[in-house]
Amino acid sequence: MITRLSNYFLKTLREDPADAEVASHKLLVRAGYIRRQAPGVFGWMPLGLRVKEKIERIIREEMSAAGAHEVHFPALLPREPYEATGRWEEYGDALFRLKDRHGADYLLAPTHEEAFTLMVKDIVSSYKDLPLSLYQIQDKYRDEARPRAGLLRGREFTMKDAYSFDVSDEGLDAAYQKQRDAYERIFTRLGIEYVIVSADAGAMGGSRSEEFLLPIDIGEDTFVRSEGGYAANVEAYRAPVPAALPIAGQHAALVYDSPETPTIETLVSHTNAVLPRADGREWTAADTLKNVVLAVTSLEGEREIVVVGIPGDRDADMKRVEVAFPNCEVEPATDDDFTKHPGLVKGYIGPVLNGAAVLGSEGSTGIRYLLDPRVVDGTSWVTGANAHEKHVAYLVAGRDFTADGVVDIATVRDGDPAPDGSGPVSLARGMEIGHVFQLGRKYAEALGLKVLDENGKLVTVTMGSYGIGVTRIMAALADLNHDDRGLVWPRAIAPFDVHLVATGKDPVVFERAEELADSLSRAGIDVLFDDRPKVSPGVKFGDAELLGVPRVVVVGRDAAEGFAEVWDRAAGTKDRVAIADVPALFDA
Amino acid sequence: MITRLSNYFLKTLREDPADAEVASHKLLVRAGYIRRQAPGVFGWMPLGLRVKEKIERIIREEMSAAGAHEVHFPALLPREPYEATGRWEEYGDALFRLKDRHGADYLLAPTHEEAFTLMVKDIVSSYKDLPLSLYQIQDKYRDEARPRAGLLRGREFTMKDAYSFDVSDEGLDAAYQKQRDAYERIFTRLGIEYVIVSADAGAMGGSRSEEFLLPIDIGEDTFVRSEGGYAANVEAYRAPVPAALPIAGQHAALVYDSPETPTIETLVSHTNAVLPRADGREWTAADTLKNVVLAVTSLEGEREIVVVGIPGDRDADMKRVEVAFPNCEVEPATDDDFTKHPGLVKGYIGPVLNGAAVLGSEGSTGIRYLLDPRVVDGTSWVTGANAHEKHVAYLVAGRDFTADGVVDIATVRDGDPAPDGSGPVSLARGMEIGHVFQLGRKYAEALGLKVLDENGKLVTVTMGSYGIGVTRIMAALADLNHDDRGLVWPRAIAPFDVHLVATGKDPVVFERAEELADSLSRAGIDVLFDDRPKVSPGVKFGDAELLGVPRVVVVGRDAAEGFAEVWDRAAGTKDRVAIADVPALFDA
Repeated sequence: MITRLSNYFLKTLREDPADAEVASHKLLVRAGYIRRQAPGVFGWMPLGLRVKEKIERIIREEMSAAGAHEVHFPALLPREPYEATGRWEEYGDALFRLKDRHGADYLLAPTHEEAFTLMVKDIVSSYKDLPLSLYQIQDKYRDEARPRAGLLRGREFTMKDAYSFDVSDEGLDAAYQKQRDAYERIFTRLGIEYVIVSADAGAMGGSRSEEFLLPIDIGEDTFVRSEGGYAANVEAYRAPVPAALPIAGQHAALVYDSPETPTIETLVSHTNAVLPRADGREWTAADTLKNVVLAVTSLEGEREIVVVGIPGDRDADMKRVEVAFPNCEVEPATDDDFTKHPGLVKGYIGPVLNGAAVLGSEGSTGIRYLLDPRVVDGTSWVTGANAHEKHVAYLVAGRDFTADGVVDIATVRDGDPAPDGSGPVSLARGMEIGHVFQLGRKYAEALGLKVLDENGKLVTVTMGSYGIGVTRIMAALADLNHDDRGLVWPRAIAPFDVHLVATGKDPVVFERAEELADSLSRAGIDVLFDDRPKVSPGVKFGDAELLGVPRVVVVGRDAAEGFAEVWDRAAGTKDRVAIADVPALFDA
Repeated sequence: MITRLSNYFLKTLREDPADAEVASHKLLVRAGYIRRQAPGVFGWMPLGLRVKEKIERIIREEMSAAGAHEVHFPALLPREPYEATGRWEEYGDALFRLKDRHGADYLLAPTHEEAFTLMVKDIVSSYKDLPLSLYQIQDKYRDEARPRAGLLRGREFTMKDAYSFDVSDEGLDAAYQKQRDAYERIFTRLGIEYVIVSADAGAMGGSRSEEFLLPIDIGEDTFVRSEGGYAANVEAYRAPVPAALPIAGQHAALVYDSPETPTIETLVSHTNAVLPRADGREWTAADTLKNVVLAVTSLEGEREIVVVGIPGDRDADMKRVEVAFPNCEVEPATDDDFTKHPGLVKGYIGPVLNGAAVLGSEGSTGIRYLLDPRVVDGTSWVTGANAHEKHVAYLVAGRDFTADGVVDIATVRDGDPAPDGSGPVSLARGMEIGHVFQLGRKYAEALGLKVLDENGKLVTVTMGSYGIGVTRIMAALADLNHDDRGLVWPRAIAPFDVHLVATGKDPVVFERAEELADSLSRAGIDVLFDDRPKVSPGVKFGDAELLGVPRVVVVGRDAAEGFAEVWDRAAGTKDRVAIADVPALFDA
């Protein structure tokens, strides 16, 4: 096929769009792939559609190879099934909700677990109909608070979402593995170097969950990995629990005055001044126990105050907090909360007062007290004495205080140990481009998806959910593959195989270029032919570089002698090649 | 490709869905092509998706041949552009409206004139960039009051919508013709016998508009056609205006008592009894003038009472009324309206009282009076005298009464003359499957789409809009192509080329069938292979007939002797064919 630029719906821009921060957003708009329609909502021009369809084709091929059947659901769905699974509420403001003319509630689906579950319920009745994997490539909606970065976080976006249905846990494991393998093939074909990280199954109630991350600085996710092969989203990182220490022989708890020490820093410096240790070591933030006061609001609207003790050299990571308190909204306690709980002495909170429990369900405040996993029995801490300008040192866990449970919400740092013993982890930024997820029986239970098993007994089906962000991948590939002149698409998804440029005014040039376009096209090569008669070579070269077709062939001055110039944009090379030899460059 | 029924996401149903009225709805659900998600909203199963994609491929090929470029717009669009063109209001309850989390107004687009206009405005600046035709195949939304008939009138549906952009009226004519030609090719390839009818351009403000109708009894449109080649939607039919008659020598107007004659029927019979004509002819309904009182409400909410005089043997056709009063809501006047206008004597309304005008802007009521085009000067009528139980005969148009204008809202009947003189028309039912439409400059003006012309002057672009209902066509084809056993798809869009059935328990049958499936597949034939091991021949045959693949090959009892049975579903034939000869049947 020959597509002629003289008659193509395209306009390249010299200026970056005003609202664009990342390279993919700037370049996809400037090069005429997409156009903004509203915040986070884009229209697709012919070039953009071509790349998107190539990505979709690769995904379809691999889904089919994984035995998944393609279906297609509407974006507009009724409220009831989402009500049954709790997602109508859980999604909060991120769900686009609307009413029809009769006042019935609808939503624009953010994902389709409910619809797939109901369709399978409608069609499948026996274990013999399973295993089953279904997928669709479809436009989804999420009302992001701050749509940003073009296609990377839009409010309308294209996803491949697949769902598996099995009777047994082993069946789910196998289906999960098939999709996971397909994802590896898809990303490899797309030329993406991905990292698979453990993800927290969180509120979805599932058991196993992994994310495919693209390591890239503009990513919104933080993940950790060790050289020994551990990799996890920070939300999923679990601090290894150290062994308990002996309590016998430890220094007795000691309450001391600590005026004006509401912060860890002031506390450490004051304590070093007034309370030198026998072994001469300085107190550090790591010796202190910080008591973080959180307000946890359940879906039903109940607000509970919870205190979490974590080593003073770490903070509460609010993303990890979210995971630790599923289905709840959590925020730091407000002044109002402190007023309502006078038993908590702000800046000097501690688990005990005069040796008696203040925090924990057995304490005087009755407030739930949770501890970081590192605070094992026998560890000794400097912490608040729960009295104004008083702290206590040598407070030993398991001797002087106990807690109602363990919660792992502290920040993760470079050098923290991997939980699997594979060495220290380092932190990196990544962008989620895929997610595989064992949902288990949550959706099937909520919507009554049961089948008869081998013994004729009704059993609830177990499900998996598997997503790839099609439009996000396109943006990510644009971010990974560009230089200061424009995009440089990987061949597998480039909008055309070759960008053929005819320059100058010499009719011979245009004749030779036409002939070359023709012979390339006849060889099955998709040609974008810049045949514009009155456009300067500079503009044509600039457009060729901006558009990002990986191979550019320039037919110009040397055409009469039978030569063209062939650019390999990724390699950065420009070679003089006989026109007759050009088609052979595109073999295979 | 071989697709095995033993592992396919399909379940056929014996019972019609409860809410299905038309054959396509019943069969597409029973045969496992679609599944209802909400009123007028369907999910697509693998079989349905295959047929839909085949239709889309044909449309894409012909759009490309017509020089249109494919783009893609979101369904979710902001309010402002639709506000600028007036469609945010005009669409009324049929528009799905919603708000985002910041309270901004959005809609689910019913068509995309605004979005295309704005994108072109963004990209095109000179007459040199035109002509331009763009299209998309995309899911649209309309909140129909009564979604019905499955895919024939859904609330979410797939459309191909194309738009053309030109500087000159001649350019628009050429673009319109190109799309019109492409539509003819598309419908011919789909095997649809269509009728092209003139349509009313109506509120869209355009000049030329034609519909492609499928003549089918379940169609919602009524159209007329003459043997001489005239065809129009009834809304677009315009009654030819007869020549005026001489007024001189006509009988003088005569008021007479007409007790209890509020209807045309009672009036005619009473008048024949009390007022015999000199020539002995009986009075008929066609001699009477019926005065229809309409309440016309503008977009701004102003309610005006209008009276229309039409021959008494016809009624007001409310669909034609809509077209005659663009951008207004029209309903028959209510009792309340009559109370407010005591000058109108219900059941006895007429244009004059005691020889003086009652109706018309010059009359005592000041109410606008319009006439059917057949009521030309010199025609003589029996009509109300605008006094209780009084009528007037021999009331001559142009002598005794005049009107404020002409409006063509009367019902159209078999035998009415075609306006182009091509003979009497006959009425038929049709379903709109395509629409080509010269929009003119309305949208470009509202949204400021101008380009520089050859003289460097800014001129407003003129546009066309061209739609094909993809999902509706699929349903229409199902309605046209079925028998009492199931669907019978035309080959061009059948989900598979052949439905291969292996019956019985003999392993030889399955071996032969496998070999045949293999050799068909290797020849590039798409095979649906019913390889289900424990399903009875009866069920397999029933499924094959229901699913509607046009050619079925049964490998059964005679397999050992090397024979299969080949069914041509459309022809109704079943032939014994040597298995070795089967692949050759699918050549070409």
